[in-house]
Amino acid sequence: MRAHDFSLPALRLNLNGLVEVLSPTHLYHWDIDSFGAHKQDMNMASIDEFENHVWKDVIPPDDLRLYAPYARQTFVGPSPAFLAIDLYNSAYRGGPRLPVDLDREFPNSCGIYAHRAIEPTKRLFAAARRARLQTFYCTQETRPLNRPHGAYSTRRDLASPISAAELYGIYHEFSPHPSDVVITKQRASVFQGTPFLSHLNLLGIRSLIICGESTSGCVRASAVDAYSNGFHVTIVEECTYDRAELTHKVNLFDLHHKYCDVMHLDEVVQHLDGLAEQRLAPVAE
Amino acid sequence: MRAHDFSLPALRLNLNGLVEVLSPTHLYHWDIDSFGAHKQDMNMASIDEFENHVWKDVIPPDDLRLYAPYARQTFVGPSPAFLAIDLYNSAYRGGPRLPVDLDREFPNSCGIYAHRAIEPTKRLFAAARRARLQTFYCTQETRPLNRPHGAYSTRRDLASPISAAELYGIYHEFSPHPSDVVITKQRASVFQGTPFLSHLNLLGIRSLIICGESTSGCVRASAVDAYSNGFHVTIVEECTYDRAELTHKVNLFDLHHKYCDVMHLDEVVQHLDGLAEQRLAPVAE
Amino acid sequence: MRAHDFSLPALRLNLNGLVEVLSPTHLYHWDIDSFGAHKQDMNMASIDEFENHVWKDVIPPDDLRLYAPYARQTFVGPSPAFLAIDLYNSAYRGGPRLPVDLDREFPNSCGIYAHRAIEPTKRLFAAARRARLQTFYCTQETRPLNRPHGAYSTRRDLASPISAAELYGIYHEFSPHPSDVVITKQRASVFQGTPFLSHLNLLGIRSLIICGESTSGCVRASAVDAYSNGFHVTIVEECTYDRAELTHKVNLFDLHHKYCDVMHLDEVVQHLDGLAEQRLAPVAE
Amino acid sequence: MRAHDFSLPALRLNLNGLVEVLSPTHLYHWDIDSFGAHKQDMNMASIDEFENHVWKDVIPPDDLRLYAPYARQTFVGPSPAFLAIDLYNSAYRGGPRLPVDLDREFPNSCGIYAHRAIEPTKRLFAAARRARLQTFYCTQETRPLNRPHGAYSTRRDLASPISAAELYGIYHEFSPHPSDVVITKQRASVFQGTPFLSHLNLLGIRSLIICGESTSGCVRASAVDAYSNGFHVTIVEECTYDRAELTHKVNLFDLHHKYCDVMHLDEVVQHLDGLAEQRLAPVAE
Repeated sequence: MRAHDFSLPALRLNLNGLVEVLSPTHLYHWDIDSFGAHKQDMNMASIDEFENHVWKDVIPPDDLRLYAPYARQTFVGPSPAFLAIDLYNSAYRGGPRLPVDLDREFPNSCGIYAHRAIEPTKRLFAAARRARLQTFYCTQETRPLNRPHGAYSTRRDLASPISAAELYGIYHEFSPHPSDVVITKQRASVFQGTPFLSHLNLLGIRSLIICGESTSGCVRASAVDAYSNGFHVTIVEECTYDRAELTHKVNLFDLHHKYCDVMHLDEVVQHLDGLAEQRLAPVAE
Repeated sequence: MRAHDFSLPALRLNLNGLVEVLSPTHLYHWDIDSFGAHKQDMNMASIDEFENHVWKDVIPPDDLRLYAPYARQTFVGPSPAFLAIDLYNSAYRGGPRLPVDLDREFPNSCGIYAHRAIEPTKRLFAAARRARLQTFYCTQETRPLNRPHGAYSTRRDLASPISAAELYGIYHEFSPHPSDVVITKQRASVFQGTPFLSHLNLLGIRSLIICGESTSGCVRASAVDAYSNGFHVTIVEECTYDRAELTHKVNLFDLHHKYCDVMHLDEVVQHLDGLAEQRLAPVAE
Repeated sequence: MRAHDFSLPALRLNLNGLVEVLSPTHLYHWDIDSFGAHKQDMNMASIDEFENHVWKDVIPPDDLRLYAPYARQTFVGPSPAFLAIDLYNSAYRGGPRLPVDLDREFPNSCGIYAHRAIEPTKRLFAAARRARLQTFYCTQETRPLNRPHGAYSTRRDLASPISAAELYGIYHEFSPHPSDVVITKQRASVFQGTPFLSHLNLLGIRSLIICGESTSGCVRASAVDAYSNGFHVTIVEECTYDRAELTHKVNLFDLHHKYCDVMHLDEVVQHLDGLAEQRLAPVAE
Repeated sequence: MRAHDFSLPALRLNLNGLVEVLSPTHLYHWDIDSFGAHKQDMNMASIDEFENHVWKDVIPPDDLRLYAPYARQTFVGPSPAFLAIDLYNSAYRGGPRLPVDLDREFPNSCGIYAHRAIEPTKRLFAAARRARLQTFYCTQETRPLNRPHGAYSTRRDLASPISAAELYGIYHEFSPHPSDVVITKQRASVFQGTPFLSHLNLLGIRSLIICGESTSGCVRASAVDAYSNGFHVTIVEECTYDRAELTHKVNLFDLHHKYCDVMHLDEVVQHLDGLAEQRLAPVAE
């Protein structure tokens, strides 16, 4: 069916020199405002579901009314890449317990919140790889002579008995593939002091699908930078976490209204499976 | 004569080529970690007061315990500049009422929260000008042909019956002086797509004192960028506001623990008055 | 003919989520290294012509031998935008005379070199507009309170009897259209302290066609930033100029070998006319 | 006691919150335009010597006349750091021969020009270390999974039989010390996609002393970025080199007039020795 759409010979270049094709594929090259009659072809989340997210139980009704004008359909943007933020060992140390009970022995572990996200994140990785998205990871820079004293992601200066390389290695469930790119950073945002932005431009990436931690730290800083640099951003709710629930929820609320589309795992996986199917479509003769 | 001044033993250069002088002034040129015995000379807020801020009533006790390792003395950093974020007319429209009651007629007004901050902000401006700090403002870019469709600070796309120039002019209580610099921006952070960072470097600025709105929008985005770019950041609690209280409080909490020193107006004014006094000291022969 | 290629139904998504089409159009979405058998479909300049440019008469033969490994086909990249650098009145003042004879009365005028480029640049503008490329201009920032003392494009600090707004207005032959974007900058590069990069990302732009002045100043700084940020850059030789010939030629030589494709006006116009033709092609049913 | 030092009338804060001291030291905290009567205290190169540099024999007299208005005293700026650009093994391979004779076997070697600069560069390193400047190196990023295909410093794509880690290790004569910082980059400029700028801000650095290679590549790109980001830049002529003489000379000419102070090794060493002496001055009680 998609394959059939695909054989339609309807092509031309749009104002930005991007191929325009009258098929769902083509939507990836249109500005959201120019979707017109093609909207129904996309996996977009209904405007009625705009506030159907994890923050529902903490945002006061008056604040939801105040933010009502931000309501819109949410979607995965054109030419997406997949970004997994700070899925390093340190976030999982101590197992699925409350961070407050782990912090003394395992500082900065996300404990239960990290472990709760493992299965959903494995589903997301599988879908992103089926759709052959370029996958980026980021983690802390740990090599020698890499920074002067004081250049840290946050004001918390951690001393640790175990090696930084071990703390900041990617968690075994999400090991990088040879075609992936791992960005090492010294600050919260994956854009700050790294070549990430130039890589996105080089590859023609126009939007990001983001998962990882922490919602209020590296995820928020990276997502705001991505939006402000001109990219569409989708954050996968079930695959994003923090060390405290209120902070997690209020930050997702801020991001969803101001900068990003917070979407549910099922919505994003459905969209990625659509891309995967198209990419497997045989080339017509 | 010069040579004699030059041989004054109260001076030498430190590793970064900054003047080291055995006086509180000099501390402004030391890294926080090298204060040592000089700490008592600074106007720093006690570590015991680290959580004595507006978020006290909304952050759960377990989360405060979790974040306890971030506690530290707070202070105004070396070579500070003063940054007033988005103090434009739009934030004050409709008067001191609840934003939720104003939004239909005056979208994005901060209403009561903006008006509540006017008197404290006037005190802060007066102290910053007495101390002869370089003052920066930022506001929205409004001139013709300045951007393509879609380049906005947030996902909320506003249409307004009154002119953008009027909406985004600086509020009359805080009109710029001829020596001030006004940064026009298209995104949330004052650093994003503007010459602000190069100006700070040119002037030898090493830290920022920030006030304005919104806490969860332009203030947070700017403060995180400032920290991540190597600047010390002080946010003045009573002079910073948002459109919703929970969002305001949780964002200040995040900023205080991860990136900035949220301080009270009295503490910052006391520090600025110390600077002003030094600057008025006559030069001896 | 192109239109016929266009009706080929061969589509699929590539790894970056970009449409792949077995037609010249499609090449715009392939990395230069993946062109393979399709190269002949593009308007590329032959590798044999790689050094057939204005610098031929100043670069010593040994240096040309040294740089021989850089030889490659040159081309206009995918999803191009058109960037006209510093085509402001100041560059044309005093008429078509040698800058050295004009500098006292008209400091920084490019004189004869600016006027010599007017007709070719008009041809380039016409072709870019026919192809419906997004057009960007840049010029100096001149509004009040825009910078502290010392923030200039170069070390030459100019005082002028006539207004900056007049000096830095776009030259009448190249007046912007309502859909164009004019970037105002304080430094040499159009990327430095401006929202230009975020605009390119927002629009899905992947390469630039550059003209303007000066080759050794704003053109070089902008072209190097574009390349280093992941964009393909084409500089149109006949539409680029400086105030001194040796400097102009050696800078074009550097740019061509290290960062950009310096191409002749005819090659670029031919390519743009190909795009224009495609965009006028009717959509097949 | 502190109070007494504090009341020394030789100090006050200037507009930027920097210590003002009536001694040459203090000049490091003044804008070049505010030096006034203090100029004679600095190690500045005379305006009469402005064109007394390596480019004298290639720049035509008319061009020197055209650029005469750029003439000014040159100097090392305030709070300097030392930056050694791309002093990696690859630049020295094949020994002190002409690059054109080495390129086939040792692509991108600077041969004779690299080796000619070894002794002067050792003198510069020694002076910078005596003055206890923060030293930064940069070199190519070589670790696995660090970039997508196509993200290179220049358009020349090198395949090499020997390991990248070996090619891009710092040359043995200039091995980093434990307190140095080594910036790994993927593009020409040390600022592009690296945390270098945030480190300079964190350390209060206001100017750079630059040496290394290549003049027309990484040195020029880095120096222009430094100037455009608000730093004063001094390039040490005898310690900077390229693969071709004309390119080297014209690029130094451009940098000197537009963005930087190109100075001679003796001038810079004399200045650094002045800093070293001050830092050894005992602190009186």
